[in-house]
Amino acid sequence: MSVVIVGSVAFDSIETPDRQVEKALGGSAVYASLAASYQSPVRLVGVVGEDFTQEYIDILDRKNIDIGGLEIVNGDKTFFWKGRYGTDPNERETLVTDLNVFENFKPVLPEGWERSKWVFLANIDPELQMDLLDQCENDPFVGCDTMNFWIEGKPKVLAGVLERVNLLFINDSEVRQLSGETDLISAAREILKMGPEIVIVKKGEHGAFLLTKDSLFITPAYPLDNLLDPTGAGDSFAGGFFGSLAAAGDVKMKNLRRAMIYGTVLASFTCESFSVENIRNLTLDIIKERFNRMVDLVRVDKEKI
Amino acid sequence: MSVVIVGSVAFDSIETPDRQVEKALGGSAVYASLAASYQSPVRLVGVVGEDFTQEYIDILDRKNIDIGGLEIVNGDKTFFWKGRYGTDPNERETLVTDLNVFENFKPVLPEGWERSKWVFLANIDPELQMDLLDQCENDPFVGCDTMNFWIEGKPKVLAGVLERVNLLFINDSEVRQLSGETDLISAAREILKMGPEIVIVKKGEHGAFLLTKDSLFITPAYPLDNLLDPTGAGDSFAGGFFGSLAAAGDVKMKNLRRAMIYGTVLASFTCESFSVENIRNLTLDIIKERFNRMVDLVRVDKEKI
Repeated sequence: MSVVIVGSVAFDSIETPDRQVEKALGGSAVYASLAASYQSPVRLVGVVGEDFTQEYIDILDRKNIDIGGLEIVNGDKTFFWKGRYGTDPNERETLVTDLNVFENFKPVLPEGWERSKWVFLANIDPELQMDLLDQCENDPFVGCDTMNFWIEGKPKVLAGVLERVNLLFINDSEVRQLSGETDLISAAREILKMGPEIVIVKKGEHGAFLLTKDSLFITPAYPLDNLLDPTGAGDSFAGGFFGSLAAAGDVKMKNLRRAMIYGTVLASFTCESFSVENIRNLTLDIIKERFNRMVDLVRVDKEKI
Repeated sequence: MSVVIVGSVAFDSIETPDRQVEKALGGSAVYASLAASYQSPVRLVGVVGEDFTQEYIDILDRKNIDIGGLEIVNGDKTFFWKGRYGTDPNERETLVTDLNVFENFKPVLPEGWERSKWVFLANIDPELQMDLLDQCENDPFVGCDTMNFWIEGKPKVLAGVLERVNLLFINDSEVRQLSGETDLISAAREILKMGPEIVIVKKGEHGAFLLTKDSLFITPAYPLDNLLDPTGAGDSFAGGFFGSLAAAGDVKMKNLRRAMIYGTVLASFTCESFSVENIRNLTLDIIKERFNRMVDLVRVDKEKI
């Protein structure tokens, strides 16, 4: 089944100690859509300026991604982000954020998309997430992402969004900030009281866990020899997760577990190249091979008692 | 098969934000021996002063632990350690370290123990680890632990020990220090060049991984609701690992994986109480139940390709 993905479509300039790229294709909706598209058709909602290139549109268009919800604003420029990573790739410094078209963006679901069953609200202003939720008509399964900027800046709107979504993706430092708890599982448990029935805490190189009222699933990260650029890893995780879950068609624990591994795998591919170079060029078989290596990495048989 | 365990036997005074204990039973050999004893007979080598109590000897004696290698030095005092944990239990401050009997300790294998097949050298001066290695006659499987203090203070002796052991247990910050590599798997790979054919990197709340030349196994930590006192967690991990491995009788990957989970489980029990309160009162069935919960936490089926 289709997944609606709402988020940013951007030009990213990225510096690492070894390399840099200028105005590469980026943005939360782009990474999430590419990651999801290997398993489910995607309906992308976002906005770009008139400077957005046909080359980048083609990258999305060649995949199973419907860009009918991608607004192109004449006379304005595409969202631009510039960041720098240190020798420790977990340390990121934002150098430039030009909102441009994003400043006045109001996401609109194209006709026929209001009844989509699967919706992922990537990390954008919670007011826009709320706008989008108001347009959904068919009680979809909704996941959302957020970040420290909104937790500090718009806590009330964010709380309203959390009351209405089924799943929250959040990283370790953000879940501590949002919950006030230091221990990550206690922190995630606090989030369950805020609305979502599923919380996924992403811990970067330390993997991720999924918590519900009565279940816990833990996965390590896929071990990488060549972590080049973690930009978009979290968005790819969410996209890979949603693509798998929508393809499975329900949120039984078994499917949530599989989706966690697909998320982990898609995030790992993203980290191995700059921008979307890797994640745009995969096949489902390559993805599944890494999925199966993930299963092997942790596999132990039960003991007889 | 029996496991020889060499390390410290100590009085520990521990402060946490909520509680404190005075002169509780502690020491690397104590935690490791108790943890191992649920699956294999243990032969403990260590030293205490005349102030060591019968009560503490009884705790070891009641288990499957032969204390024939525990030297009691009249006229001297037992090794004493005092530490304090902050609200973040990963932050530990050492307040007092009185070596006492440990200052002049020379570990001696009692007659008949030289041909033991399984040897664990807990975290002590690498010169003592070397002494002990010189007494082994039967080409045993040897694991050792170490710490930042020896990596800085006795790098050459430590290098000599590493050339002669099969397995190194080491934590995340120490493996970075010893290897000069930031990435943990790259760091562990460097250690494999120093001698051991197996490296186990312990990452506290983030779990642990085991690396050999051609295998990698990853496990998360057991999620704890009530982490009280992490003192001895690493030693319990190593003990649980060795107890399981010696019981299995060989170092096939399947048995190394099982041993990793037993190590993880025993470490988790240690963290749930002060001193050895929890780890001295377990049963193998209780341990196996938690083992099976660990298996459930990460279980995913492979995908068909």
